[in-house]
Amino acid sequence: MAESQTIYGIHAVQALLTKGPSRIINAWVDKQRTDSKVNQVREGFEALGLHYESVDKKTLEKLAFGGNHQGVVVAAKLPQEMTEEALKKKVATREGDAFYLVLDQVTDPHNLGACMRTALAAGVQAIIVPKDNACRLNATVCKVASGAAEVLPIYRVTNLSRTLKWLKAEGVWLTGAAGEAMQTVFDASLTGSVAIVMGAEGKGLRLLTQKHCDQLIKIPMSKEVESLNVSVATGVILYEVVRQNTLRVK
Amino acid sequence: MAESQTIYGIHAVQALLTKGPSRIINAWVDKQRTDSKVNQVREGFEALGLHYESVDKKTLEKLAFGGNHQGVVVAAKLPQEMTEEALKKKVATREGDAFYLVLDQVTDPHNLGACMRTALAAGVQAIIVPKDNACRLNATVCKVASGAAEVLPIYRVTNLSRTLKWLKAEGVWLTGAAGEAMQTVFDASLTGSVAIVMGAEGKGLRLLTQKHCDQLIKIPMSKEVESLNVSVATGVILYEVVRQNTLRVK
Repeated sequence: MAESQTIYGIHAVQALLTKGPSRIINAWVDKQRTDSKVNQVREGFEALGLHYESVDKKTLEKLAFGGNHQGVVVAAKLPQEMTEEALKKKVATREGDAFYLVLDQVTDPHNLGACMRTALAAGVQAIIVPKDNACRLNATVCKVASGAAEVLPIYRVTNLSRTLKWLKAEGVWLTGAAGEAMQTVFDASLTGSVAIVMGAEGKGLRLLTQKHCDQLIKIPMSKEVESLNVSVATGVILYEVVRQNTLRVK
Repeated sequence: MAESQTIYGIHAVQALLTKGPSRIINAWVDKQRTDSKVNQVREGFEALGLHYESVDKKTLEKLAFGGNHQGVVVAAKLPQEMTEEALKKKVATREGDAFYLVLDQVTDPHNLGACMRTALAAGVQAIIVPKDNACRLNATVCKVASGAAEVLPIYRVTNLSRTLKWLKAEGVWLTGAAGEAMQTVFDASLTGSVAIVMGAEGKGLRLLTQKHCDQLIKIPMSKEVESLNVSVATGVILYEVVRQNTLRVK
């Protein structure tokens, strides 16, 4: 029983056509739209020999549950999670600096999806999550990720400690976010190959995970606030990496 | 018919005790908790002559709808929105640099709440919103803001263009976020008295609003992503202000 999802909007559907066309189950296009953007999507379907239905706007609105479909909606199988073996291969054969996001114990699908969207925007190349106590890639995650889950691979590893140790041995600098850190994200060096390690909202990083990090950082915050939403905190930190490595995002 | 809200957690309740104790309708404290944090909240109630009920954990869990109540829950009237007149007074009598967030046409209560939480964390002193086409301060906003709505005033103005013009005349540098901007947030100067102007997710800033800004900035983004969530984008930009003015957050 494979779970399916609805993907809509020009960008998201184009990304799926490029990255995972075999996952498309059904496709619908606004029969009245003849602008170049929608036509490019049509051509994308045709080039791949994929059937699509031409329907009216009302039908698309229903299919997209009222979302901003921009004339195109598809039903697709969920993207597959990647394995530890695949991660090893990716890291070992990387060209240029690594930029990874490790999410430890993020269990809420909205938070995982929001982090994926932000991570892709910032140029992150891989999301790494543990097998236990972590949200799996489901339809809610994909929806909140707004297409990012189609493009950004998520690697699920059995033993996060072992993976962190191994990443370190591969020359990836591990920076963990922890409210109790001495230095702020702006004081830290975040250049070269980096993995940003974020914990669950409210709880933060587990001590064992902290121990594996090369450095800990915090986001400076007004005393009246206990914590930031994990996707906002992730955004602030990832974009400080972007700032320090301005060539990262093309 | 005044709308009420549920506030829970040590930080949020303490903030309410400091900033708006007159809004408290009912209060409940875990009768089994005798640690200093919960005791400080009890003392806070007592010092203000406010009645609270001592109840068991189960009751608190129900009152907080399963949220992380940390032993304290209150029912409170919603904070009041502030007027244009109050904003003028605040700006004219400010000490030190201004740091404001203008949200143009943000209609979703989750987005408004998330922006308020992020803004308070970053040290923003006021949120400015237009009267039309903008979400009002309701129970959902307060809940998502996680206590920030208790502390951070929201000013609703009749004519946003007029307010922006007037802020500029008061020496506040207006920076608008727009995907079509030429410079990135990291290239821009964001020091001194600033107001960050954010538009609605997906739509961005209205042209008229853009026109009033002293500068426009964009967040660099991977081509595969259309936009960031507005609270994440707000976080990235506000924290770049924080970084450039490291003394801003105490």
